Amino acid sequence: MIFSAQASDPESKARTGHLDLPHGSVETPVFMPVGTNATVKAITNEQLEDLGIRLVLGNTYHLFLRPGLEVLERCGGLHSFMSWEHNILTDSGGFQIFSLAPFRKIEEEGVMFRSHLDGTSLRLTPEEVVDFQRVLGSDVLMPLDLCTPPGIGEQEALDAVELTTRWAGRSRSRWLQSEQNSGGYLFGIIQGNFFSHLRRRSAEQLLELDLSGYAIGGLSVGESFPVFQEYLSLSAELIPEHYPRYLMGVGTPEYILEAVEQGIDMFDCVFPTRTARNAQAFTRRGPLSLKTEAVKLDLEPIDPECSCTTCRRYSRAYLRHLFKTKEILAAMLTTQHNLAFLQSLLVSIRRSIREGCFRSFKESYLRGYREHRENQNELNGER
Amino acid sequence: MIFSAQASDPESKARTGHLDLPHGSVETPVFMPVGTNATVKAITNEQLEDLGIRLVLGNTYHLFLRPGLEVLERCGGLHSFMSWEHNILTDSGGFQIFSLAPFRKIEEEGVMFRSHLDGTSLRLTPEEVVDFQRVLGSDVLMPLDLCTPPGIGEQEALDAVELTTRWAGRSRSRWLQSEQNSGGYLFGIIQGNFFSHLRRRSAEQLLELDLSGYAIGGLSVGESFPVFQEYLSLSAELIPEHYPRYLMGVGTPEYILEAVEQGIDMFDCVFPTRTARNAQAFTRRGPLSLKTEAVKLDLEPIDPECSCTTCRRYSRAYLRHLFKTKEILAAMLTTQHNLAFLQSLLVSIRRSIREGCFRSFKESYLRGYREHRENQNELNGER
Repeated sequence: MIFSAQASDPESKARTGHLDLPHGSVETPVFMPVGTNATVKAITNEQLEDLGIRLVLGNTYHLFLRPGLEVLERCGGLHSFMSWEHNILTDSGGFQIFSLAPFRKIEEEGVMFRSHLDGTSLRLTPEEVVDFQRVLGSDVLMPLDLCTPPGIGEQEALDAVELTTRWAGRSRSRWLQSEQNSGGYLFGIIQGNFFSHLRRRSAEQLLELDLSGYAIGGLSVGESFPVFQEYLSLSAELIPEHYPRYLMGVGTPEYILEAVEQGIDMFDCVFPTRTARNAQAFTRRGPLSLKTEAVKLDLEPIDPECSCTTCRRYSRAYLRHLFKTKEILAAMLTTQHNLAFLQSLLVSIRRSIREGCFRSFKESYLRGYREHRENQNELNGER
Repeated sequence: MIFSAQASDPESKARTGHLDLPHGSVETPVFMPVGTNATVKAITNEQLEDLGIRLVLGNTYHLFLRPGLEVLERCGGLHSFMSWEHNILTDSGGFQIFSLAPFRKIEEEGVMFRSHLDGTSLRLTPEEVVDFQRVLGSDVLMPLDLCTPPGIGEQEALDAVELTTRWAGRSRSRWLQSEQNSGGYLFGIIQGNFFSHLRRRSAEQLLELDLSGYAIGGLSVGESFPVFQEYLSLSAELIPEHYPRYLMGVGTPEYILEAVEQGIDMFDCVFPTRTARNAQAFTRRGPLSLKTEAVKLDLEPIDPECSCTTCRRYSRAYLRHLFKTKEILAAMLTTQHNLAFLQSLLVSIRRSIREGCFRSFKESYLRGYREHRENQNELNGER
């Protein structure tokens, strides 16, 4: 078992613990920044380390295309290539094949697709995805899965669940055969679209494989917050407590707090880093746009309550100027802040769970977070 | 006098010293990174400080357009705005008006031009340039000048020299009237195109104004290296040794070494930062392109002899991948290296002058620097 629970909140399913991974122990609940192309965009490894980040996500699809197998193999795997001595979770590539590739065809054997970069025809089977992640030296491997969009029919969702299960079985066999020095644990991904009995079916089938942890896929894909809550709760409950629970694609304070309350231990999202590059910053009082006229002469830091290296030194007025002039430093400083902000939120969450007051922490946090936002309707659309 | 000489090389005009400026003392010879829009591109102030950089350049033209007078005034000047507590030299804006503005008209009173951003008609007089630099709180102010392109006739070059002198006189009057808490010293800019008697005339006229230092303008504008050497030598000799001598637009090892040998104390150039963003890195063995196939599997750092934070951690193969995937980190890491490389060169230059062996240092350095380049003809074009 790679997961050890520590404290549990008496009033909810929130819990702290740690993941024992090949490149060190990781405290949970944990937010994993996304390092698509072997770099978390616009921030150095040194800065990530200074923020206490010990687990980042890499995108199998992107790394498969660039730099590709040969370079990663010759450079000694992803840790060595990107000079990151802490943990790396790599996704399965499935989500990117569906969202980025201009063409794809699903077969029992695997998925055929064209690269979004140059149109090259490529194929990935569950076995090849495991093999590639072994070359990467991933600490956590995700098996090739089929993530379906909301709104499809039940039969299509059922077929996707069944195929995801068969692929998970093949992934597990390959993973067991390919045990290497680096270790690395294989998770399962629960699908089932927005059909509760299919979610249950997916979980039951995957649990039979006794994988190292379980992820919840196919949520946070555009559904309303109440629907998200319902399917999150339902899916999280299906994962026994001795497994780490990973909710894919979540990275805002509101979604993170909800996920933690439902017993989730791990989450990842491009949101904090992508929106940083688009001048959207987290604050204790809700999101703040750094491009608006409103901050033109604002000498406050992004968040006066934040003690990150950006907030200790730079003003909103200066950041606005950097965004207006399209300076790289704008993305650098705002990315640093957004990740520091989430790290600090996670520290507070873990502390509140240990102190048995997660629920009141959550309520008070969201009160402050939403209060301001209600006055900033123009920022409401994005998440 | 803001300049104090310390050591002199017995075999050349090379010298060390320091500049006493309002925001601290600066060792010379010094390379000043260019911070066009109130940021040295792709690097934080913390990193600049860690590199020992205590003097950066700001572009009056760019800052005048964005964020503009109101913001800079309300934010307490440029140091406060960009959170840089060390020294700032601001150029006159003249060079940018001539290289960037889609339209400009020179009159006795000043220069009319259109913004390259939105076409707005603007005017800058020598007095307004000084006033704006006072708002910026510049430690070294450069007066509005007329920099002419190579190949013009003698009369045109003479007229430009005379106008530059009259503008320098008006700048000096305004500067004397506007003495503020921040201090800030006004330099003169020697012009004269490629006519030796006009260079002499320009220097003589400007020296009568007894400004705080003298810059050499209009060199390194595309002329051959021997022509550059000739006019550099001639111009540098015209500046008495109790003044700091500033050569504008120079920032490669070969040009810096040449300038130091001719008694230059200060230089600036966008080259190290701009080429870094275009995947060109300095090494002890000449420039290295980080985009070539040749470094695809190269696990060496940019420069094995360099101890900067980039070279301590990242390989050429990884940097190539970052450039190929257009990652911001590529610009960040290479900018850091190129500036660290020049800082380290300047430390070695100052040491060799103090130890009385600048000439042999220069020769041995250039031997290593050029040896490799002769095998890399494809890189020869750029400087």
